[in-house]
Amino acid sequence: MISLRFVFLFLLISFSTSAQKDYKLWLQYNAVNNSAMASEYKSNLKGIVVLGNSETIKVAKKELKTAFLGMLGNVPEIKSELKEENNLIVGAESSLNPEIKKTVSADFDKINNEGFIIKSVSIQNKKQIIITGKNDVAVLYGVFNFLRILQTNKSVKNLNIADSPKTNIRILNHWDNLDRTVERGYAGFSLWNWQKLPDFIDQRYIDYARANASVGINGTVLTNVNANALILTPQYLEKVEALANVFRPYGIKVYLTARFSAPIEIGNLKTADPKDPEVINWWKNKSAEIYKRIPDFGGFLVKANSEGQPGPQNYGRDHVDGANMLADAVAPFGGVIMWRAFVYSEHDANDRAKQAYAEFQPYDGKFKENVIVQVKNGAIDFQPREPFHPLFGAMPKTPLMMEFQITQEYLGFSTHLVFLPKLFQEVLQSDTFQKGKGSTVAKVVDGTLYQNKLTGIAGVANIGNDLNWTGHPFAQANWYGFGRLAWNPYLDSEIIADEWLRCTFSNDENFIKPIKNMMMESREAVVNYMTPLGLHHIMDTGHHYGPGPWVSNLSRPEWNPTYYHKADKNGIGFDRSKSGTNATSQYASEVEKLFDNLETCPEKDLLWFHHVSWDYKLKNGQTLWNGLALKYQEGVNQVAAMQDVWKKTEKYIDSERFNEVGMLLEIQNKEAKWWRDACLLYFQQFSGKELPAGVEKPTQTLDYFKSLKFPFAPGNG
Amino acid sequence: MISLRFVFLFLLISFSTSAQKDYKLWLQYNAVNNSAMASEYKSNLKGIVVLGNSETIKVAKKELKTAFLGMLGNVPEIKSELKEENNLIVGAESSLNPEIKKTVSADFDKINNEGFIIKSVSIQNKKQIIITGKNDVAVLYGVFNFLRILQTNKSVKNLNIADSPKTNIRILNHWDNLDRTVERGYAGFSLWNWQKLPDFIDQRYIDYARANASVGINGTVLTNVNANALILTPQYLEKVEALANVFRPYGIKVYLTARFSAPIEIGNLKTADPKDPEVINWWKNKSAEIYKRIPDFGGFLVKANSEGQPGPQNYGRDHVDGANMLADAVAPFGGVIMWRAFVYSEHDANDRAKQAYAEFQPYDGKFKENVIVQVKNGAIDFQPREPFHPLFGAMPKTPLMMEFQITQEYLGFSTHLVFLPKLFQEVLQSDTFQKGKGSTVAKVVDGTLYQNKLTGIAGVANIGNDLNWTGHPFAQANWYGFGRLAWNPYLDSEIIADEWLRCTFSNDENFIKPIKNMMMESREAVVNYMTPLGLHHIMDTGHHYGPGPWVSNLSRPEWNPTYYHKADKNGIGFDRSKSGTNATSQYASEVEKLFDNLETCPEKDLLWFHHVSWDYKLKNGQTLWNGLALKYQEGVNQVAAMQDVWKKTEKYIDSERFNEVGMLLEIQNKEAKWWRDACLLYFQQFSGKELPAGVEKPTQTLDYFKSLKFPFAPGNG
Repeated sequence: MISLRFVFLFLLISFSTSAQKDYKLWLQYNAVNNSAMASEYKSNLKGIVVLGNSETIKVAKKELKTAFLGMLGNVPEIKSELKEENNLIVGAESSLNPEIKKTVSADFDKINNEGFIIKSVSIQNKKQIIITGKNDVAVLYGVFNFLRILQTNKSVKNLNIADSPKTNIRILNHWDNLDRTVERGYAGFSLWNWQKLPDFIDQRYIDYARANASVGINGTVLTNVNANALILTPQYLEKVEALANVFRPYGIKVYLTARFSAPIEIGNLKTADPKDPEVINWWKNKSAEIYKRIPDFGGFLVKANSEGQPGPQNYGRDHVDGANMLADAVAPFGGVIMWRAFVYSEHDANDRAKQAYAEFQPYDGKFKENVIVQVKNGAIDFQPREPFHPLFGAMPKTPLMMEFQITQEYLGFSTHLVFLPKLFQEVLQSDTFQKGKGSTVAKVVDGTLYQNKLTGIAGVANIGNDLNWTGHPFAQANWYGFGRLAWNPYLDSEIIADEWLRCTFSNDENFIKPIKNMMMESREAVVNYMTPLGLHHIMDTGHHYGPGPWVSNLSRPEWNPTYYHKADKNGIGFDRSKSGTNATSQYASEVEKLFDNLETCPEKDLLWFHHVSWDYKLKNGQTLWNGLALKYQEGVNQVAAMQDVWKKTEKYIDSERFNEVGMLLEIQNKEAKWWRDACLLYFQQFSGKELPAGVEKPTQTLDYFKSLKFPFAPGNG
Repeated sequence: MISLRFVFLFLLISFSTSAQKDYKLWLQYNAVNNSAMASEYKSNLKGIVVLGNSETIKVAKKELKTAFLGMLGNVPEIKSELKEENNLIVGAESSLNPEIKKTVSADFDKINNEGFIIKSVSIQNKKQIIITGKNDVAVLYGVFNFLRILQTNKSVKNLNIADSPKTNIRILNHWDNLDRTVERGYAGFSLWNWQKLPDFIDQRYIDYARANASVGINGTVLTNVNANALILTPQYLEKVEALANVFRPYGIKVYLTARFSAPIEIGNLKTADPKDPEVINWWKNKSAEIYKRIPDFGGFLVKANSEGQPGPQNYGRDHVDGANMLADAVAPFGGVIMWRAFVYSEHDANDRAKQAYAEFQPYDGKFKENVIVQVKNGAIDFQPREPFHPLFGAMPKTPLMMEFQITQEYLGFSTHLVFLPKLFQEVLQSDTFQKGKGSTVAKVVDGTLYQNKLTGIAGVANIGNDLNWTGHPFAQANWYGFGRLAWNPYLDSEIIADEWLRCTFSNDENFIKPIKNMMMESREAVVNYMTPLGLHHIMDTGHHYGPGPWVSNLSRPEWNPTYYHKADKNGIGFDRSKSGTNATSQYASEVEKLFDNLETCPEKDLLWFHHVSWDYKLKNGQTLWNGLALKYQEGVNQVAAMQDVWKKTEKYIDSERFNEVGMLLEIQNKEAKWWRDACLLYFQQFSGKELPAGVEKPTQTLDYFKSLKFPFAPGNG
């Protein structure tokens, strides 16, 4: 009586309450609809043998159960012996008996400590599948990767995978404040409920750890780089310890931001001078105190002498002095210092884009070996497009880690659908030429260019306490994709989009193909309707929401959009060539030449490097003014096209996410037009030219756009 | 092949992901395990006939489908005709054909406009069940009440229910700020995502409306009583309109808080004087603007001249002037003004407990008929226990509405399990004696004592964007219970606990009985370990988290705990009798005598009304000091007993909520001890006596407790 009909009705229920689908991220473990694949999985996975009993192995076992139940409707028998074939064997190298081990012994040479092996083997003439690695966390990575094979409906026959992460530190930076506001957070508020910690462990902490482990993220900085020293007091360290305990089985280390003036603020010292013996001692003791609680504590992330944060320069010292002092404090415990190179000064009249390089490049080779310098992808600040940061490749004796921004501070908050792995990939594949052709940013980041031992990629998290974690269902793909690229900076973003869509929504090709295309084009769309042709930093002040190219009244010149676009009667753009600020000279000569010459400079970076006349002829034959206007229009058109594509997906996915994305695309469309109209009306004052055919007329005046105020826009620190 | 086994596995999955259970509140619609009842429901509910097609009726239909699918595994056939028996007929009076209508025509005389009828009838000798009312929202209430019958596994044979709400305005007050912080909010942040409104409709808005409608709540004040005038600007009204559109089908009206100085702040006027013609006109125009967008806008809630909020007194006018001016502005559109009586002044040296009565009672009869005065349940401020507010019953010519606080500002935030309907019931059943014996607060509130037409109950919401809405799974019961008591202020809180447990967790009597007892005792426990014997307002400053009886340094005397407990060598307590501030004289003479006399004053209110010597003999023969200490200990013991009871529930409920509540009870236990130890150590300085046998010794010093600081405790405005 209770039969198939009941089951389908049950499925209906789960479709009707998909706030819950959103919550599950890419770990939906939807039932495998492809019956051939379902049969293959069932016949090849009749039993599971899990070796070991650590917390990590228990997590792996639980994940397998949850996943099989969801995807295949039942859990293969949990076995303790290999009497029959078609078992899944899961365990670390040390737990494998000699017979099993010899089937994969050569594979262990191919992987590093965090790498995993997934292999179809024959043991006593019985075929089995092995998931293993050199330790339990590596096995957990293998399990998640194996489950992804099923989630994406790929074959489990003849598996032979040996894969290792290419970077050591794959880490989220949470810009979360202790009051749970999140600087540049657009998905609600901080996950960390400090009030209820350490005694209340929210299920979200566990699900956060699962999601991160599933893509190989192995670290998290819990607190904002604009730091509060209180996090280093026992009252808070007790809470941090509780989170570290939750995350440990998932292979995730906890890190904190260190406020440089903490010795004064919570240590009752008179100074935070990094050369002061009391200060040195204070940090040593503080580190010991932390490591006593959290033996695998990762270390500190530091924003010093930047945008008002205290730092060594307050005491006449430099970044090296500050970083090395902290590095000494954590070194006995194996900790690292991630020291940010995001610096620029109101006392420096130089092009802001040049300042980080100018300040940090001379420090090359001077940092202690457990310091890694964290460099944003571009020289300004997470714009929709920036040329790669000139520091990459320019500090051969210093480990540099990449800082990407997953949260969309400048890319439409959590309302705009923008697939960021495309942006990340563009940066990673940029060739610095610092050690000849092929010296890509990826090779700097993974350490292969200069044989750095310490490597890493950081992503400023887009995660908050919204039901769906990231505000926009598609922003989940940016968290996912960041993790995948941190694991392998050479991965193609299209593969990432494909995986994520299959794991998150559906394996139906009729859904996958158009939506994957939509994702792949989404980043260029946002560049087009916000900052085409190399424009940058023309957003409104403070909250960074919407256009503000007219803003020119801020106290620090380099905070004003007019500083960046320099529009005038003659043209538009920032001359960073030899005739200008000569920022191009910070690149290797091949790159310098490319950017410096108006003819060879890629048009996508044109106005980043050159001040160009309104009548300048673009490669397509359009004048700059017309081309600029058409780019803005193209961006709007691209969003409209995304809407059309999305409308056709209704039959493939649950109605709730279908509706959510539909509403968000509608907002994105409105806001794309707002950007187009506001920017073109403003720049038109300088160009004095009509909008070309094909560009829609603005429906509001420039004064209207200037009058808009958003006092409670989220994320404003 | 895919059969029962699959189904059970599916159920297992839903158990393993119960962040999702928490989210569903008391609308879990769990499968009916009682097979006899399941059969009864199936045989009596073979078809559904839904009459009408309004948005509200569509909502009712959808809810029935969701509920039947969950509880019975399938949805009865949706029919358009009554050919067979055992149908459920759902529709408003106007949609019933004469044959159906005559079976319930007499019942319509028993209900008011919002009341519903659920009745087993015979039509053409075929038995059917009818759910009807005078309009569609009443029908929706009927549907939710009918579903509660199933959720609580009660029979649907021989139904004959005609029920109406006893109050007009059943409303939540959200103290939500425009930046999404929530004053006194302990369940995350505001549900209202102003940034994404009006275009993005979060599923939460819909589920919030469903939950409210299911208990008969028909209004919501979206914004904090400490108001921001920006909510009244077009930029925000557009967003409010979008929420009103979502809530309308559920019978929920939207209200806003009106900042009295709005005409200055957003209207460019020089004054907000309620007698100024420009100000009068500004509010009329503003009201017209709002009603143009939201024709069923409810009206304004106003906190004026209280705790720094602007008001008519800033211009030499009084509360009547202010309230009536606003009342005139909204009257043409049917709006109401809810004017808060929560006032006390730093310039008034009188007992704070007397000030609201002293100020408002003389206004009796002076307010316009669409004004209702909103009075907190007690004269101080939402303490664990307060005697009923003396204004209740004392303003016969003025509608008074009750203001309860559902959020646990003074009762352990969202960490302590406290079943508040017990507190609400105690207040509602208090006899004011203002029109003779039996003049209960409930009769004031429902208007029957003085035949007021306008009636209402407000609850300060405990709802935030936590996954489970209220922070503590059991705090959901306080939202639920508030709604049920707003509908019927005479309802027994034990019935409410019973209903809520069955709808939320399980109908298993082995679970229900002990947990219901635990809930019923939980309120007395918090009184015991925080403020026994009539103590009040001895919490720490600002955030109100934890004990602070020692605080005496605040600028306003009536903000200091020492003002309230007045502990000294001679004894403890606030003398509000004739020999003291004579606050007792604000009550009817029967009540006055009762409270005034140390011998007749209920011991639960002893120190509220009397300063009592440490050696005073309590009714149980203990000295006051020993009795006080033993009460604190009793509170701690009660929490320990709650923990023991809870530990036995593991087999009845999902593991996630089992663990959550277990962790929270552990925190509650810790904090109960903190309250006990800190208060007793502090009061012991005055009593100079040892702790009696049976009271555990404190493990920390008084100085330790005084040193605790919580700079980021949530909810601090």
